[in-house]
Amino acid sequence: MFSQPRKVAFELPSWIGAFARKYTATGDIRRRMGFVIAAARKNVEEQTGGPFAAAIFEAGTGALVSLGVNLVLAQGLSFLHAEMVAIAVAQRKLGVYDLGGPGLAAYELLASTEPCTMCLGAIVWSGVRRVVTAACDQDARDIGFDEGPKPADWVETLQSRGIDVLSGIERDAARGVLLYYLSHGGLIYNSRRGNAQE
Amino acid sequence: MFSQPRKVAFELPSWIGAFARKYTATGDIRRRMGFVIAAARKNVEEQTGGPFAAAIFEAGTGALVSLGVNLVLAQGLSFLHAEMVAIAVAQRKLGVYDLGGPGLAAYELLASTEPCTMCLGAIVWSGVRRVVTAACDQDARDIGFDEGPKPADWVETLQSRGIDVLSGIERDAARGVLLYYLSHGGLIYNSRRGNAQE
Repeated sequence: MFSQPRKVAFELPSWIGAFARKYTATGDIRRRMGFVIAAARKNVEEQTGGPFAAAIFEAGTGALVSLGVNLVLAQGLSFLHAEMVAIAVAQRKLGVYDLGGPGLAAYELLASTEPCTMCLGAIVWSGVRRVVTAACDQDARDIGFDEGPKPADWVETLQSRGIDVLSGIERDAARGVLLYYLSHGGLIYNSRRGNAQE
Repeated sequence: MFSQPRKVAFELPSWIGAFARKYTATGDIRRRMGFVIAAARKNVEEQTGGPFAAAIFEAGTGALVSLGVNLVLAQGLSFLHAEMVAIAVAQRKLGVYDLGGPGLAAYELLASTEPCTMCLGAIVWSGVRRVVTAACDQDARDIGFDEGPKPADWVETLQSRGIDVLSGIERDAARGVLLYYLSHGGLIYNSRRGNAQE
């Protein structure tokens, strides 16, 4: 007889709470990004996922709302990119499905690498008002990751929807984490570009 | 002191198991799609979410693997489109993050409406080998939903990645569910195209 799980849950690594509590709110976007990149490195060091992190901040104060890391392999779900995790945790924490809804602060997403197609769409639906990225698409491709069928003008399309985009903040540091993952034998999953795994 | 949920879970509606057990495996793609569209209608009737459903089948036998419905409002998470739910449930049920991995059957995703940008990306990462859709992007837009910044050539990009696409199967029936939702006062969330909610 047919059956399927009625509930799906995913869990963040045990180190995430203590790590996030080390962050102090700052108006300096480079320091915010430095914290996110450090989380991506920690995720590799702890072997809890891929070399990617993302976080939601209050854009005005720099207060941290949520910190997410890539959990695809750790949790066995292909959608668990860092951006998806950070957005879901923020929405549950604040009790809203729309972070851009009435009466809320303006929220921003910082991501250690530019978003893939899936995360690009998820950003639009999330309600965040600004996206800030470090490593670029090409840096991810250089180590074998694939960003998916993303429109070439994705930055402009976000801007036309009222979502600001700031790219390349602390790019070298974020690229360093990608190379660190590669040099430590990290698995480049989802690298078959839609073809059967070789 | 900073804190955030360490675990995020979402739950499918209580009717989903009994509903899915009514399906009998069939080689007829129209009958498979009819089942998916009926689930979308049931989701509206039961007031458990938006007018969208998706399911994963074994492409060869037509056996059902997972059935998902839109849960954005019900579960308070903007990423819970029907396709995301069906993929996550299938991956957990089968214990793999890659439905296209070695030794597995070929799986296909049926969706009652063409995928948005987010779901397009998620489809690529999921490992499904075929996508079959009913209502088209324009049908969703006609009632006020928004598909996001999706490349115009998204069908070709899926095909170039080895994922077949079959569109417009039982389109009228699926469009009927969208109109049913609209006429019953269903909330068209995420319709602000990135601007502050009016």
